[in-house]
Amino acid sequence: MSTSNYDKVMKLALERGFYFPSCEIYSDAPAGFWEYGPTGVSMKNKFIELWRRELVRRDGMMEIDGCQIMSKSVFVASGHLGNFTDPIVKCTKCGSIFRADRFIEEKTDERVPERLSNEDIDALIKKHGLKCQNCKGELGNVSRFNMMFRVGIGPAGEEAYLRPETCQTIFVDFSRVFKTMRGRLPLGIAQIGKSFRNEIAPRQSLLRLREFYQAEIEVFCNPAKLDDMPRFDEVKGTTLRLFRDGDSEITALTAEQAIAKGLVPNKLVAYYLALLTEFYEKTGIDITKSRFRRLSDEEKAFYASVAFDFEVQTSTGWLELVACNYRSDYDLKGHATTSKQKLEVVDPSDQQKVLPHVFELSMGIDRSLYTILEHSYYEEQVKDETRAVLKLKPYLAPVLVGVLPLMTKDGLGEKARRIHSELKLDFDSFYDESGSIGRRYRRLEEVGAPFAITVDPQTMQDDTVTVRHRDSMQQERVRTGELAGFMRASLQIKR
Amino acid sequence: MSTSNYDKVMKLALERGFYFPSCEIYSDAPAGFWEYGPTGVSMKNKFIELWRRELVRRDGMMEIDGCQIMSKSVFVASGHLGNFTDPIVKCTKCGSIFRADRFIEEKTDERVPERLSNEDIDALIKKHGLKCQNCKGELGNVSRFNMMFRVGIGPAGEEAYLRPETCQTIFVDFSRVFKTMRGRLPLGIAQIGKSFRNEIAPRQSLLRLREFYQAEIEVFCNPAKLDDMPRFDEVKGTTLRLFRDGDSEITALTAEQAIAKGLVPNKLVAYYLALLTEFYEKTGIDITKSRFRRLSDEEKAFYASVAFDFEVQTSTGWLELVACNYRSDYDLKGHATTSKQKLEVVDPSDQQKVLPHVFELSMGIDRSLYTILEHSYYEEQVKDETRAVLKLKPYLAPVLVGVLPLMTKDGLGEKARRIHSELKLDFDSFYDESGSIGRRYRRLEEVGAPFAITVDPQTMQDDTVTVRHRDSMQQERVRTGELAGFMRASLQIKR
Repeated sequence: MSTSNYDKVMKLALERGFYFPSCEIYSDAPAGFWEYGPTGVSMKNKFIELWRRELVRRDGMMEIDGCQIMSKSVFVASGHLGNFTDPIVKCTKCGSIFRADRFIEEKTDERVPERLSNEDIDALIKKHGLKCQNCKGELGNVSRFNMMFRVGIGPAGEEAYLRPETCQTIFVDFSRVFKTMRGRLPLGIAQIGKSFRNEIAPRQSLLRLREFYQAEIEVFCNPAKLDDMPRFDEVKGTTLRLFRDGDSEITALTAEQAIAKGLVPNKLVAYYLALLTEFYEKTGIDITKSRFRRLSDEEKAFYASVAFDFEVQTSTGWLELVACNYRSDYDLKGHATTSKQKLEVVDPSDQQKVLPHVFELSMGIDRSLYTILEHSYYEEQVKDETRAVLKLKPYLAPVLVGVLPLMTKDGLGEKARRIHSELKLDFDSFYDESGSIGRRYRRLEEVGAPFAITVDPQTMQDDTVTVRHRDSMQQERVRTGELAGFMRASLQIKR
Repeated sequence: MSTSNYDKVMKLALERGFYFPSCEIYSDAPAGFWEYGPTGVSMKNKFIELWRRELVRRDGMMEIDGCQIMSKSVFVASGHLGNFTDPIVKCTKCGSIFRADRFIEEKTDERVPERLSNEDIDALIKKHGLKCQNCKGELGNVSRFNMMFRVGIGPAGEEAYLRPETCQTIFVDFSRVFKTMRGRLPLGIAQIGKSFRNEIAPRQSLLRLREFYQAEIEVFCNPAKLDDMPRFDEVKGTTLRLFRDGDSEITALTAEQAIAKGLVPNKLVAYYLALLTEFYEKTGIDITKSRFRRLSDEEKAFYASVAFDFEVQTSTGWLELVACNYRSDYDLKGHATTSKQKLEVVDPSDQQKVLPHVFELSMGIDRSLYTILEHSYYEEQVKDETRAVLKLKPYLAPVLVGVLPLMTKDGLGEKARRIHSELKLDFDSFYDESGSIGRRYRRLEEVGAPFAITVDPQTMQDDTVTVRHRDSMQQERVRTGELAGFMRASLQIKR
């Protein structure tokens, strides 16, 4: 896969309404903020619906939707106020600010570990004699920049923050949800929503945003019963692709074998890694280009005891789509202590009180969508032109079907509009009468529409249309009365 | 409708996982922030899907999803930095802060108009000799409090704000969306998302939040062609319920008559008011308890030239669910001037350049959900107990069907779990084996589940189950193989 695929997807995204920079008409638009256009929203909604179906409903999880602004205490308890910081360094002459660890890594061969102290980073800057890249001025001492956005509530400006991860809502709400919904361990609580991180250096487009969508699942479990997992049997044959830095290749083996070999610690973790694999297979991502990378102790987030990153190969390198962290009781213990509330629950299987541990699947939606686009993007030679086509699954395609009159005269335009009207409430149908039929096919292929219906003179005779298949470019004639059934069948998800 | 219905719905919401206060385990949880629990999320998602179907897809609108943090320039242009303020007054002794206009209205008979100057409000406080309600201290002079939340971007803390209305995203993105999606006037651009207002005095539960969901539609139109609206014919017979303060009653007449009588200014506005009416009819809100109230010049927002509020009668009084504002070119003109970009588009019908005007339907999702719950709530006497039942439309019900084994022994539990498994991916199915069958019915009725499937000894003989209908409490026997078809049919939306 060539590195220019990033640029091709970017161009398509901008031209076809997938995504584009926020506030772009303004010169003070800050970096790291992107919007979804109409095709992007449609695809995102379908991705979320697939996530709900294949993870939330399949596993009987509970989905909540909480506030993005949360009180200060939440982040005292979670450790974010103290630990969620990046080292920064300021030029004493021109005032430019850099993220210190990245700066050193860019200018030297040095790798700066995640949790190096300010003093040790200062020493590295001295050792390499690094100066400001803008004015060659002296750099000051390293300090810490907290990546949470602070807001003030009410006229008194009470301290609160935009959440840096959606899961804090789940931890704070756990007790009420568990009790009112009569939960039983292990219980997954899920949430889709925005999180906010005041990145010093956001990456291009959807890859590292300051405002981004997460789909997080926190599985609350009894730490004494991580292998007491009857539903593991459903996925014991599912292939997991496991990797650790230093391995010469990815180890692909069944969930059951992975436990036996000690590559995955228990059935609960293996079950959810398998569910995640099956979910991503259905998105159309090339699963042979994915891996669960087990993180070393230096790389793990401050709350994680065992961690796997689900990574996918893209033209920008291996991209982390999901962080799978065994957070133990780090969060509930923190919230229980800070709030002085009891957060234990009773496990009915033995009537013992337990403070649940947590295993999480923290998914980045924006990056997942980018990866699906890149893996679905093909260029093909058709006669003497190149067609760019997104080979999206029908249930993820922003437009399911285009309705095209071959010409608008002789009642063909009217007939096509009527067919579109009959489909549009239940399916993403798009009516297009402008330009040559070839150009209209090209536009539909670029947004990944699996089908194009053409209304031609024969339609007026026998009430059939041609349905053209995006990938094969084959056409078949279908009765107009059967189109809704045809479209509905195309949306079926294979098990 | 008794005033206690608010309390009944509140109790149900808390006990059955519809909604509850954010960060409730913490004593510093700020007011005006509420979360959706599992049943609330499910209902909200279905409400949004209905909105997409009946407004966005029906009218061929484009839906976008933009950032909540926007640059300062956006709010210079929109007027929010200058105008989006509430008058506040601070006690010179104890420092308590009050919203000045509300404070006067609570303590006296005086009605304080929306845009009264600080000096005039000072005069009213003097006239009535008002003191601090906490310590009887002297009140200082009225000042202005801007209701936007400010955030700082990056280490330099660049000035930006959380959007106070989602539509600003739509205005800023208009030009790109119109061009790349090959739009034609009139064009609706829609968005679902969070908005933020730093209210001085949030109201109870979902009724006035600091962080809330809007579903906004901005219809861009050519101001010279507001009656050039062929699709008006689809709704000309739809009844609009119109009202103006001072009227003795609501005037109910067709969209066509409303234009003829001058109660609605043009076909474009009438068309969208009719679409909105038809949408809310499908939500199950009692439409005979609704009205479009035309606002007086004093009441309108600073950007509106004609405005109707869609209001619904609830136990808390008339509640505004949708603000329908004709914003003219106020917003696009402001953004064009501040950004120095050209935002005119060409109307292909006459090839003239035009700066579009905007008519908006600004819907509050949270309040709409509250109102649907209140209008769906019934208490009925069944033998010697009272059942509380939410008579929700099947396509809005958080749980569509409960699957209940009459008892778990003799294989009934296993059979019921298998039926649940076959339904759960495609439908919101809920498995429940605990407690008496009567108690299980009650719980399902309280979350508005239209159907309860009971697996009984006969099931093991002939593979049929009983399906119990929530409202009539009638039961019928259905073959298990036909359950999916039964459920799918129940979700059809009547036209």
